[in-house]
Amino acid sequence: MSILIRDVLINDIVKDIFIEGNHIREIGEGLVYDADEVLDGKGMAALPSFANGHTHAAMVLLRGYADDLPLDEWLNQKIWPVESKLTEEDVYWGTRLACLEMIKAGTTFFNDMYWHYHGAARAVQDAGIRAAISAVFIDLFDEQRAQDQIALNRKLLKETGRYSDRIIFTLGPHAIYTVSLKSLQWARAFADEHGLLIHIHLSETQKEVEECIHEHNRRPVEYLNDIGFLGPDVVAAHVIWVDEKEIQILREHQVKVVYNPVSNMKLSAGIFPYGKLKGAGIEIGLGTDGCASNNNLDMLETMKFAALLQKISDGNPATLPAAEVFQLATTGTFTAFGLPAGELRAGNLADLILVDLDHVQLIPHHDLIHNLVYAAHSGCIDTTICDGKILMRNRIVEGEHEVKQRAQDLVTDLLRCGAPA
Amino acid sequence: MSILIRDVLINDIVKDIFIEGNHIREIGEGLVYDADEVLDGKGMAALPSFANGHTHAAMVLLRGYADDLPLDEWLNQKIWPVESKLTEEDVYWGTRLACLEMIKAGTTFFNDMYWHYHGAARAVQDAGIRAAISAVFIDLFDEQRAQDQIALNRKLLKETGRYSDRIIFTLGPHAIYTVSLKSLQWARAFADEHGLLIHIHLSETQKEVEECIHEHNRRPVEYLNDIGFLGPDVVAAHVIWVDEKEIQILREHQVKVVYNPVSNMKLSAGIFPYGKLKGAGIEIGLGTDGCASNNNLDMLETMKFAALLQKISDGNPATLPAAEVFQLATTGTFTAFGLPAGELRAGNLADLILVDLDHVQLIPHHDLIHNLVYAAHSGCIDTTICDGKILMRNRIVEGEHEVKQRAQDLVTDLLRCGAPA
Repeated sequence: MSILIRDVLINDIVKDIFIEGNHIREIGEGLVYDADEVLDGKGMAALPSFANGHTHAAMVLLRGYADDLPLDEWLNQKIWPVESKLTEEDVYWGTRLACLEMIKAGTTFFNDMYWHYHGAARAVQDAGIRAAISAVFIDLFDEQRAQDQIALNRKLLKETGRYSDRIIFTLGPHAIYTVSLKSLQWARAFADEHGLLIHIHLSETQKEVEECIHEHNRRPVEYLNDIGFLGPDVVAAHVIWVDEKEIQILREHQVKVVYNPVSNMKLSAGIFPYGKLKGAGIEIGLGTDGCASNNNLDMLETMKFAALLQKISDGNPATLPAAEVFQLATTGTFTAFGLPAGELRAGNLADLILVDLDHVQLIPHHDLIHNLVYAAHSGCIDTTICDGKILMRNRIVEGEHEVKQRAQDLVTDLLRCGAPA
Repeated sequence: MSILIRDVLINDIVKDIFIEGNHIREIGEGLVYDADEVLDGKGMAALPSFANGHTHAAMVLLRGYADDLPLDEWLNQKIWPVESKLTEEDVYWGTRLACLEMIKAGTTFFNDMYWHYHGAARAVQDAGIRAAISAVFIDLFDEQRAQDQIALNRKLLKETGRYSDRIIFTLGPHAIYTVSLKSLQWARAFADEHGLLIHIHLSETQKEVEECIHEHNRRPVEYLNDIGFLGPDVVAAHVIWVDEKEIQILREHQVKVVYNPVSNMKLSAGIFPYGKLKGAGIEIGLGTDGCASNNNLDMLETMKFAALLQKISDGNPATLPAAEVFQLATTGTFTAFGLPAGELRAGNLADLILVDLDHVQLIPHHDLIHNLVYAAHSGCIDTTICDGKILMRNRIVEGEHEVKQRAQDLVTDLLRCGAPA
């Protein structure tokens, strides 16, 4: 399978892109290739697609279900009771809906942590995008639960071979306040043994830090460091409440961190210390978090929030400029997962989008990246290509009607069966 | 002219809407009217359109032209040099582009302050939406300039009769740091004489407050109070840096204030004290500000920023919930300008939108207002009706190609003629 995209703008120059298999083979002017499919790129700009560094995809089913509540009430009275009812089939259709939303918003990779691994993995397989997927690991300091989770992860690692290599199996110890020391150490050893990434929530709230100090007499990053958990294969979401010493520890271990500005604002968790982490040379990605705390998976919107939150908290409009936040959502995040994507160049994976330059919020064309980050919404994306396959063209995704219908129907059933209204 | 909208969801109930002339005549189930036009509302929800409480519409021409810069450099080296070259024709096409963007994003009213009044007024007339328009009044404490501005405003008030009553002539003294005491007092007297609204920037930055204290030995609101400027006809944009005493003064004079969260964050001006102003009973509207500091005119996006900025600054996820921020962008703003709109009810102006419920970011349908405020982008709006006229249907606005082309062309010319790159 090969695709030739003709006459598309790349950095303000009209070029062609030739895609062969799942890679970009060549980018240049007037390319001559006999492609299986030719796309007319006139009036469009080609850009890398986006990578979502932290989410819980199937939580899209809970979009708008519980907002504007204190964190404890939100989790205990609304989110957890519904989640406990979800089946693998629910997670399949929830993740399909999430993938559909991401394809429509130009995202071709996400880092997921949720229940029912196979539901999520099958959905990603069928939707055609990429994901790093972990089965959320929570033992609540209970030995039996820990053993069950360990057994499950061993089993899933074997079973994940049935899926496309677009799916990366990762470990998902939820957080230090839900996972025992022993299980965290098991995750580290298992990751080492099999070369796996570890996805964890870290220092999201002040409460987490206070409890850690109370329990372990150390701050969260120090605790994880002392138990030998940290390393360049750890992707830590949030990382808001860290002090200078913790930042140095994260840097030494080359831990990747993911900034989730919308969720952090909506739950009023705190302000990600972007300047300090960047200053320390830590690799930073960008994420949406799950739809119950965002409430979408829209990386363009997230870029604007990411930049503006840093500007207002810094008191400096020059902080985190457009090109830099665009980089966080592309190479910044893809690179953390070892994926050669996020830039349009020969040899990279063929993950890219075509943007319709006739979209009113992209006019006038002073600077396309500025327009994308600060002005446009994701409706300006005409075409999404992942792994050399066209997943959206003219904003239409094959089979989208069924995905929306099935997701809506299962939510209706779920609430009818006694979830708290 | 009459329109019957059939089978549309209003607050989760399927109803019909009958529009006669420029008003909503009746809303109910199974209405029987012989309408000039019948719209099928199946799969759609009807909602009030949005009102943008503060902007400089034609600045859309500068979208993406100068971002991520310190305020002084941004204004002096980039924005003002280009603005000084704009002609009335430029402002016409700029405002047409702004109106097009607003129609596409469900906004049917905006409160404008800019140069070349007739350019803006003609554009609003032709685009079919509503606006309160002021000729920006800046005298820089120069007597001759003040006289010129006063003469201009007297002339414009006479001339504005040529436009539709969708256009409200207002006075636009820019701010206390650009307008002399004498001119501010003239604006107050002229507003009283002719029953006009006054649109002013107020307490946007700490610098403004410091300079006012240095110059007048009082804070900005105290200064305006002492010179007799304040009243229920004053619409003040920003109002960030106000103390308790100033809030009481604003309340006593029933001044309307407009919150511009995106601009405030992007320019790192400060955080609007929503809770304190609301607590004092002050009427609050919502605005985008101009595109050079936003960079769009999208009220749905602004609602999300408005809510999330208050949550994070309050440390409370329950602050400014979705329904309340939706109210700010509808009745909150329309009411400040004396317009009977912002709610769908018989007798109100026929300003409304139809939202396509099949939009992926609106699924599942737990709560439409939550989905609109927190999840969707403005691409979910299918139809925009203003003053009883259908301005957008199936996301298509008549004549939009010409507007986009003309705006882009004039920007290209403007930059070619020596504006700073």
